[in-house]
Amino acid sequence: MICWEEMEKPHEECGVFGVITPAVADTPANHMTSENTAEIVYYGLYALQHRGQESCGIVVNDDGVFVSHKELGLVGEVFTHTVLTQMPRGRMALGHVRYGTTGATNRANCQPIEVNHLRGKLAVAHNGNLSNAFALREELELSGAIFHSTSDTETIAYLITQKRLTAPSIEIAVSLAMERFEGAYSLVLMSAKKMIAVRDPMGFRPLCIGKKTGEDGGTTWFCASESCALHAVGAEFVRDVLPGEIVVFDAEADQPMPFCIRDHCGKAERRLCAFEYIYFARPDSCIDGISVHSARRLAGKLLAKDALAEADVVIGVPDSGLDAALGYAETSGIPFGIGLVKNKYIGRTFISPGQDNRLDLVKMKLSPVASEIRGRRIVLIDDSLVRGTTCRRLIAMLREAGAKEIHMRISAPPFLHPCYYGTDIDSEEHLIATHHTVDEIRAIIGADSLAYLPVSALSVLSGGNGCCCACFDGKYPTRIPADTRKDRFERKLSETKGENT
Amino acid sequence: MICWEEMEKPHEECGVFGVITPAVADTPANHMTSENTAEIVYYGLYALQHRGQESCGIVVNDDGVFVSHKELGLVGEVFTHTVLTQMPRGRMALGHVRYGTTGATNRANCQPIEVNHLRGKLAVAHNGNLSNAFALREELELSGAIFHSTSDTETIAYLITQKRLTAPSIEIAVSLAMERFEGAYSLVLMSAKKMIAVRDPMGFRPLCIGKKTGEDGGTTWFCASESCALHAVGAEFVRDVLPGEIVVFDAEADQPMPFCIRDHCGKAERRLCAFEYIYFARPDSCIDGISVHSARRLAGKLLAKDALAEADVVIGVPDSGLDAALGYAETSGIPFGIGLVKNKYIGRTFISPGQDNRLDLVKMKLSPVASEIRGRRIVLIDDSLVRGTTCRRLIAMLREAGAKEIHMRISAPPFLHPCYYGTDIDSEEHLIATHHTVDEIRAIIGADSLAYLPVSALSVLSGGNGCCCACFDGKYPTRIPADTRKDRFERKLSETKGENT
Amino acid sequence: MICWEEMEKPHEECGVFGVITPAVADTPANHMTSENTAEIVYYGLYALQHRGQESCGIVVNDDGVFVSHKELGLVGEVFTHTVLTQMPRGRMALGHVRYGTTGATNRANCQPIEVNHLRGKLAVAHNGNLSNAFALREELELSGAIFHSTSDTETIAYLITQKRLTAPSIEIAVSLAMERFEGAYSLVLMSAKKMIAVRDPMGFRPLCIGKKTGEDGGTTWFCASESCALHAVGAEFVRDVLPGEIVVFDAEADQPMPFCIRDHCGKAERRLCAFEYIYFARPDSCIDGISVHSARRLAGKLLAKDALAEADVVIGVPDSGLDAALGYAETSGIPFGIGLVKNKYIGRTFISPGQDNRLDLVKMKLSPVASEIRGRRIVLIDDSLVRGTTCRRLIAMLREAGAKEIHMRISAPPFLHPCYYGTDIDSEEHLIATHHTVDEIRAIIGADSLAYLPVSALSVLSGGNGCCCACFDGKYPTRIPADTRKDRFERKLSETKGENT
Amino acid sequence: MICWEEMEKPHEECGVFGVITPAVADTPANHMTSENTAEIVYYGLYALQHRGQESCGIVVNDDGVFVSHKELGLVGEVFTHTVLTQMPRGRMALGHVRYGTTGATNRANCQPIEVNHLRGKLAVAHNGNLSNAFALREELELSGAIFHSTSDTETIAYLITQKRLTAPSIEIAVSLAMERFEGAYSLVLMSAKKMIAVRDPMGFRPLCIGKKTGEDGGTTWFCASESCALHAVGAEFVRDVLPGEIVVFDAEADQPMPFCIRDHCGKAERRLCAFEYIYFARPDSCIDGISVHSARRLAGKLLAKDALAEADVVIGVPDSGLDAALGYAETSGIPFGIGLVKNKYIGRTFISPGQDNRLDLVKMKLSPVASEIRGRRIVLIDDSLVRGTTCRRLIAMLREAGAKEIHMRISAPPFLHPCYYGTDIDSEEHLIATHHTVDEIRAIIGADSLAYLPVSALSVLSGGNGCCCACFDGKYPTRIPADTRKDRFERKLSETKGENT
Repeated sequence: MICWEEMEKPHEECGVFGVITPAVADTPANHMTSENTAEIVYYGLYALQHRGQESCGIVVNDDGVFVSHKELGLVGEVFTHTVLTQMPRGRMALGHVRYGTTGATNRANCQPIEVNHLRGKLAVAHNGNLSNAFALREELELSGAIFHSTSDTETIAYLITQKRLTAPSIEIAVSLAMERFEGAYSLVLMSAKKMIAVRDPMGFRPLCIGKKTGEDGGTTWFCASESCALHAVGAEFVRDVLPGEIVVFDAEADQPMPFCIRDHCGKAERRLCAFEYIYFARPDSCIDGISVHSARRLAGKLLAKDALAEADVVIGVPDSGLDAALGYAETSGIPFGIGLVKNKYIGRTFISPGQDNRLDLVKMKLSPVASEIRGRRIVLIDDSLVRGTTCRRLIAMLREAGAKEIHMRISAPPFLHPCYYGTDIDSEEHLIATHHTVDEIRAIIGADSLAYLPVSALSVLSGGNGCCCACFDGKYPTRIPADTRKDRFERKLSETKGENT
Repeated sequence: MICWEEMEKPHEECGVFGVITPAVADTPANHMTSENTAEIVYYGLYALQHRGQESCGIVVNDDGVFVSHKELGLVGEVFTHTVLTQMPRGRMALGHVRYGTTGATNRANCQPIEVNHLRGKLAVAHNGNLSNAFALREELELSGAIFHSTSDTETIAYLITQKRLTAPSIEIAVSLAMERFEGAYSLVLMSAKKMIAVRDPMGFRPLCIGKKTGEDGGTTWFCASESCALHAVGAEFVRDVLPGEIVVFDAEADQPMPFCIRDHCGKAERRLCAFEYIYFARPDSCIDGISVHSARRLAGKLLAKDALAEADVVIGVPDSGLDAALGYAETSGIPFGIGLVKNKYIGRTFISPGQDNRLDLVKMKLSPVASEIRGRRIVLIDDSLVRGTTCRRLIAMLREAGAKEIHMRISAPPFLHPCYYGTDIDSEEHLIATHHTVDEIRAIIGADSLAYLPVSALSVLSGGNGCCCACFDGKYPTRIPADTRKDRFERKLSETKGENT
Repeated sequence: MICWEEMEKPHEECGVFGVITPAVADTPANHMTSENTAEIVYYGLYALQHRGQESCGIVVNDDGVFVSHKELGLVGEVFTHTVLTQMPRGRMALGHVRYGTTGATNRANCQPIEVNHLRGKLAVAHNGNLSNAFALREELELSGAIFHSTSDTETIAYLITQKRLTAPSIEIAVSLAMERFEGAYSLVLMSAKKMIAVRDPMGFRPLCIGKKTGEDGGTTWFCASESCALHAVGAEFVRDVLPGEIVVFDAEADQPMPFCIRDHCGKAERRLCAFEYIYFARPDSCIDGISVHSARRLAGKLLAKDALAEADVVIGVPDSGLDAALGYAETSGIPFGIGLVKNKYIGRTFISPGQDNRLDLVKMKLSPVASEIRGRRIVLIDDSLVRGTTCRRLIAMLREAGAKEIHMRISAPPFLHPCYYGTDIDSEEHLIATHHTVDEIRAIIGADSLAYLPVSALSVLSGGNGCCCACFDGKYPTRIPADTRKDRFERKLSETKGENT
Repeated sequence: MICWEEMEKPHEECGVFGVITPAVADTPANHMTSENTAEIVYYGLYALQHRGQESCGIVVNDDGVFVSHKELGLVGEVFTHTVLTQMPRGRMALGHVRYGTTGATNRANCQPIEVNHLRGKLAVAHNGNLSNAFALREELELSGAIFHSTSDTETIAYLITQKRLTAPSIEIAVSLAMERFEGAYSLVLMSAKKMIAVRDPMGFRPLCIGKKTGEDGGTTWFCASESCALHAVGAEFVRDVLPGEIVVFDAEADQPMPFCIRDHCGKAERRLCAFEYIYFARPDSCIDGISVHSARRLAGKLLAKDALAEADVVIGVPDSGLDAALGYAETSGIPFGIGLVKNKYIGRTFISPGQDNRLDLVKMKLSPVASEIRGRRIVLIDDSLVRGTTCRRLIAMLREAGAKEIHMRISAPPFLHPCYYGTDIDSEEHLIATHHTVDEIRAIIGADSLAYLPVSALSVLSGGNGCCCACFDGKYPTRIPADTRKDRFERKLSETKGENT
């Protein structure tokens, strides 16, 4: 079984984390140091686990030799004490958490990806999705390239290493490759000697930089998908990577100060994914200058202004509906209540109930606080409504617990379109909003009233920075691929006229 | 590594859950039915997991044959799909979650305990602790008894089966044995033909009954430590078991209606453990007529009346400080805020950071929402203060995030005395309140002010029912044992003058 | 899947191993020493693994505190590096390997059994089976005893500890208890201060003593089911424990020299299980003065005299048929050949082939050496014939490989009767010899001729010592139990007129 | 711990196994069939497990979609019931067992390797070693190629897919690529539509073809490293693949009859690795027309002629010395005896004894049959002598058991040179024969006499076919690489003048 969030929410695809430590005196610049960088990445990934629960991996750069461990599972499952202590120490390390879509055999798609090429080694950790990945891959295959995985990250790695054959440095190779990339990519790259953070020109996915100064005055630098991971490892937030920017940390310098390449900055308008604020990111993170918790509370406030209900108590669906519920309560003046308790032990090992006991999964995961519900008119806040199934059972459960009225409020607009930038929204056929009006949905879920956040509110949440709302309004900021089937590399001969041999 | 709660909180010892289903028509009364009772207990235990995370077990009664699985670990770790599907179906099943104190080899203490005796079989699931267990055990050993475990539950089982040699029924044997028991015991027992719920005359630990009527009109009955487990399996709460009551469900009746033996009811004053309301129980549970969430919110309100602070925001330490924080905010008029985010992925597999990276465990587990903290005067609410170490680091973290003032409020009185009734309070030498005044503690944890809930408030929380506050005020409601060393069965020869052979 | 032997052979029930090391100077007699006795037992059990593959366990006596680990599985599976290094060091340790009959949940029957009683602790490792276990248990239950397991070993432990209430020492308690025991028991017991080896008066199962002198002149003593385990740990064989003898090693002596109690010696005739020589024991062991390998080779010689075949080559079924094949070749003058190769990787994790591929399990496990088989007349030697199924497929495989004639010779008599002394012979309904004449069996298995070892030859194998041949001739040396159902403790209410409650 | 063989013997690198089943009527040619080919490969790999114990893998071709599972561990560890049943059914499947040299993180080198290229997919299972792999890889990297692993198999795959860009078929691409390959390669390849078996022109490593006709008349074809794997799956041996031959099975034909390309046949002299006969292959296999068991027995006979000893018994070191011991006994007239018993439970989970118990690993693994040894003059036969350590302890053990004289005979010549064709011989510094004369070695191991098989005898064993004896005589049949360090892809920056970036 899976978490509540995994059942009924869109999925983020990834989180990335990198670290580079200063050289230790009396040893050559690239030599192994006493810093346990694998352990640091381990803690960074723990803080990013919400961005991907399918697989994870860490690569350590031990003086130019890359040692990695990548596996399906949560960070705490994959990195046992034995595994972690067997990783070498090295000045740099890179990690990744991933949400994926296929089964146990899909280990080839675990990240970071590592490749060996003429000029050395490259490890790539990627958050996002190239919208032209398939076209680029075909082009590379025509020149004889072979691929081990079906992920677009391997295409990114391939193109960068090809550019590296002639480019004078790895960072210039990255800049050249970026001319060919379309879509979303927040990358952390690691070569034998450098760590490089890259964000696509539209800035679809977050990426930030942090640092921490040791007792000896040396500075360790960090790259992370979200600032919450910097906090977890005791680092201070320095700044977001700019859309289009390439930030390079060179281990050959004793103190690996970042230097920046901004050839691609400003080439496009900012398009941070709106759902990062609404649901993906952790509330204690700050993205492009905006506190995620504040953005969510603001969503609740805007929702209260736009769709006020007469009620006795405002209740958020834990955990992600709580921030917006607090905002709704503040603006509406209706008291905030703790009316639902989540079973925090239900995780991946939980076994869904079979049919014969007629047990209700929703009741196992969420439980009403009867004293808060009985006889009350309730505003119920959640951050998304995908299929409606869970919501319907939740509302039924609250009515059973004695709720008098239930006014459902969603702190996001309705999902109507697929995403090509790294979010796994349910297929259109399952999206309740593509088939029904708001009032029909209200009837299906059994609420007394229902309202969504208007699309126009999203730019307010992002502080006017400009965001991608394509899944809500269908306005895609890039060309979209002709063939979007996830399994385009996994088709059977009998479906493809046998062109493969 | 362990959970936040496991580090710095007192530990509940156990949770119990039992189920008995109606006979299926056309089969003899005791025959196997199609009900998957092991699966029902599995879900019940998931809802009681907060009461014990060390080990768990389920026993199924398959027409008089007991089949069990017990192991160290969480419910979701111990009961894999394979294990669960290999358990037989049977009309009755019994489960237990346990918190214990010793290492990996202590499997012998897993519950439910099962014994074979002249009149058949008995399985026992126990929450609480007999305060005269050691004396009873010595008495039994003098008559030639041998013991396989070091737990008082085996003593309970032994005494009941001895009484059964002459008693006309198992329930009368239980009643006779209760005359010898002192201390805390909420039991669910299972014999070949009966399920029996028992609560000690003082009612130290909770125990309640639920039922669920199937489509065919048959009624399934449940016993559970807390009402939240009834909700999880879709049952309706019927009532609490009375202190001193024996409730019997007889499988030989087609419909196993409960009948009650109340010989021991009213023999003593009620003494429900106050910490059940303050911390142990789940907020959505209702114990002896009081909603746990409401009791905690009330504790916050009383605390606000007693120790009001001038501040900008009230923040609860998640998860267990949130209810009281909401109450404090309501009474004080200071806004409730979400200022701390808990990493929900940190569980048992988490590896504590080593020394060399100077990482702070508290920062990995709790993270401040900077926008809520910076420049604010904060009332910080938690439900207990044991050693003070964690609290000190938490306050330091909030100051680092920009808090202007921090007013610590604890929604319980200070711990000063050991518990003999099934709560594992830290040893006195570690309890900060036994060595320091409130103002010294304030200075140690680095707060601007500190206040505890007064002991007198506890009777208000329990609705005037009477509760055990011995760990706060030292007034023990029973005789206390002379020898309280946990390891009295594990002493070395060199420490005991070699009386053992 | 299971081993070849597990499929078609009778099963031995157990192996036992104990060790006691000298006290270390400058520490009290019972104090912990630097000897890693758990590790020594681990290696001893590895050498006895052939005697039981279902479960195993080790108990260490750390100065009177017993620490144990017992689990279902092979020694190498149960005792991982982590488990083994977590066991304390102590002067004594006791181990057991067990073959059992029931499923994954039967952990309660793992040995050594440990009990706590008034006078201390006792651990019991048992090889054999009491033929009056059920009657003794009923008697104990009538006095109020409860049992946790369904094994006769718990009855042994109970009776000894009851006698200990009045007996002046544990060894006298053992001697008193032996007056009540009937049947087979080779025991190694461990109390806080003593290790005791016991063999029943008929000596059904082997048990021997070894020693090893350290560099400092201190002597470590060992008890083991077979001498091969002494060799594995570098000890020298001292002697077999006599039938009826009690050998005591007292840790309070600096040098734990054995002393013997021989009250029960000579009370009955020797009855060593004949199948120990034929199949159970390892060929490099020596039991009651007879080399197992020599006994088997002698069986082959006697078989050749009794049932000579005209053939070109003698082939033994590996591994246990090889010794007898060599003997047959020597006496007959027909060359010994290596004609069958066993796949040594097929163990417990092997998955049996499903039906749809029509694969033959026998072919995966055994493979003919074509150059030895083709065109030859073969004498095929195995040590037993239980159901005949495997043998039939083996013969078919050899014919397919080109064998001209196949003369089957079994180096044991036909199985006709159940065993009550610790051997798990297949139920009578499956024993081919109870339903068919030798010639019918020959036809069923497809051999050109078939002969068994005559029962009269068994006394020759045992060197005239007297052995138990009850499974062949039905002459039981003790009373046999009225109720022999293995599951007498696992009956359903609906089968037992509901006498249990 | 590891097996006896893994300690003191040269290591084979790999075993390969492939299967292709006929199309099922009424479905298109490439459609999924009801054949469980993954299961068939599983059993084939079990029979080849002796050729590689480090990792294993299976790839199923489900109508053009490749699904694989590859992992470190034995076949029985990696392919659990769950894993095996989750693999899809498909008309073709390919498997591999591998012996490797590095640690837990080396999963990238597991085989079969799978790649995606412009014309489809290719899976490669490889036994052997390209002697020019490094040079080929550098050439490919210069054209922009990236590599994921450090294995030469990826180079093989890359070159074949590059040739495929212009070649009209995959088999012609293979033939073109073979012009560039030097050294040892027995390959089984699988494309979307074809299975292809390839053996290098010198035939260093074995490879054979088998078939099995179903009840419906359809024929399933098999490729395997050794004929023993054909027997295990019930197939009949058809023939060895010729050195230099390419055998193609086309799934588009309803009946995938093999067709052969023999462009490279006869281009070089046959050079089957002599050690396949002496030690690597299973005795029941037949390679290039020679029975392995017969070859080993012949080695024993030749050794007896060349180095007869006066003795009472001939004893082989189990398991691999038994065949030669039988041959020695036959020719010398000295009786063959079973004098050493191997503990068959000691496998990968076995924990080597620590220092403090002074236990002898050799005694745990091998045990003397005292009655065969005591007072005898022994000829002891083993198939190789690498470091001499184990042999010395074995001889000491036999002397301790009472052996009067020990005449050591090795059924192979002394190892003197490294192998570049896929055998992992211990490094020269450890090879006892590179530093000592035969008489010195005799003294070191403590034997009364010592003799090796002369190199000249090897051509007799191979039936005059011509074999590679380079590790004995240094006559390499191909150019040898300048840089032979195994870790040439794993060097640190500080060791390589930092040429990598």
